[in-house]
Amino acid sequence: MTKGEAPIKRAAGKKPPRRGDAPARLWLYGRHAVAAALANPERRVRRVVATRNAADWLSERRASDAATRPIEDLKPDAIDKLLPAGAVHQGLAAEAFDLPRARLKEVCAPAEAGRPVVVLDQITDPQNIGAIFRSAAAFNAKAVIVQERRTPPLAGALAKAAAGAIEHVPCVKAVNIARSLKALADLGYLTLGLAGDAGTEIDAVDKARPAALALGAEGAGLRPLVAETCSNLVRIPIAPGMESLNVSNAAAIALYALSAHA
Amino acid sequence: MTKGEAPIKRAAGKKPPRRGDAPARLWLYGRHAVAAALANPERRVRRVVATRNAADWLSERRASDAATRPIEDLKPDAIDKLLPAGAVHQGLAAEAFDLPRARLKEVCAPAEAGRPVVVLDQITDPQNIGAIFRSAAAFNAKAVIVQERRTPPLAGALAKAAAGAIEHVPCVKAVNIARSLKALADLGYLTLGLAGDAGTEIDAVDKARPAALALGAEGAGLRPLVAETCSNLVRIPIAPGMESLNVSNAAAIALYALSAHA
Repeated sequence: MTKGEAPIKRAAGKKPPRRGDAPARLWLYGRHAVAAALANPERRVRRVVATRNAADWLSERRASDAATRPIEDLKPDAIDKLLPAGAVHQGLAAEAFDLPRARLKEVCAPAEAGRPVVVLDQITDPQNIGAIFRSAAAFNAKAVIVQERRTPPLAGALAKAAAGAIEHVPCVKAVNIARSLKALADLGYLTLGLAGDAGTEIDAVDKARPAALALGAEGAGLRPLVAETCSNLVRIPIAPGMESLNVSNAAAIALYALSAHA
Repeated sequence: MTKGEAPIKRAAGKKPPRRGDAPARLWLYGRHAVAAALANPERRVRRVVATRNAADWLSERRASDAATRPIEDLKPDAIDKLLPAGAVHQGLAAEAFDLPRARLKEVCAPAEAGRPVVVLDQITDPQNIGAIFRSAAAFNAKAVIVQERRTPPLAGALAKAAAGAIEHVPCVKAVNIARSLKALADLGYLTLGLAGDAGTEIDAVDKARPAALALGAEGAGLRPLVAETCSNLVRIPIAPGMESLNVSNAAAIALYALSAHA
């Protein structure tokens, strides 16, 4: 395991790697996740392993690609051994380097209506984060901002749930989420915090304004400082008595509600 | 394992159990899933096991319940041994009987605007089905209709993802999905099929009419016969070039879009 492989385990207070540090190496698996990684010119891939079937699927999909990459032909159980237990790899996996770091001001400016930014506060479940990336891509998000220290690597089950979206939507790894929200407000974003007990419903938001959407963990919600930093708190109207929506489902609804079509 | 425990494994062509057959026994786990089951008078529970912490959480939550049930005090690893490998039980599990069968005409009539029915065609992923139940509850659905032969038991990881919603939203286990859609149309429902290539956007649907929403599996979509049976095919507008949304996220957006608030 290289030094940078698992940023979630890095001790509190230790600085994140700077530009120029070697990027982390990680495994991607699942057909859409790997195909999207291979199609992404920013993604450096070290090794691709595939079953015969998956290699056929991949070559059909990449028919127009001039640059093809050597693929190691492995049986499914040999791929199993390279990956965490229980990984549903669909016969296709790639060992790759983490993407280059995205910087908030570079990927979020200029603020544009219809190009939301999604901000995740203490969301740690890889499946949920992956599904949120997928919805962010579907709704043309400029970026997803996560807290560097608490977020699992953009790989494995997270990348699989994202179905390729981590290759399309830049991810900003922030040290401080409240500060990121302030930076987004300075860029002209309306900074919306999703909160079950907010007084305003999300469909009341002015869609002509660029929006950043902050989401907290299920149960806990946004941390108080993060909620205070938002310009508006909004809620998704749901039936009384129901606790909450799954966080990736709440993100999907909010992104739809903020889109021009809703 | 009792005869009825795993309906998904029942051989094709074999009849589903009739009323009067012994209901299947199954395990529910996770705090919200078990608490909701214990609060549901329709749910027969045989056994509850909990860690000390989880039992405290449960008794605070059920403070107003007159009928309390004996709880076996177990360590987390003893609960692990009762459940499938990797089950995230949060210290709380219950062995219960399957809920009584819900019949389409009993739970879906009368058709009402703002009380959608969700119809799942060939969706088999337990997490997705559970998350769809949770959103169905949040948007006041009358029922979820699934295909009996292809659907995993409403237990385990599915019930955990539903976070208690399977106790609130009746589930109709249908032999034939197209026939169920016809029965819903006869009851006065607009039968909407979600399809990525549909010409109509979902926000164009008349919200004053009761709606049934049919969802197919990711990738495959609705089966042709099911799609033909729908009165309208509708799509969620997403960015061009993105393959699709996760099916539970698509369901959540559609239920929101059909609600009076959107």
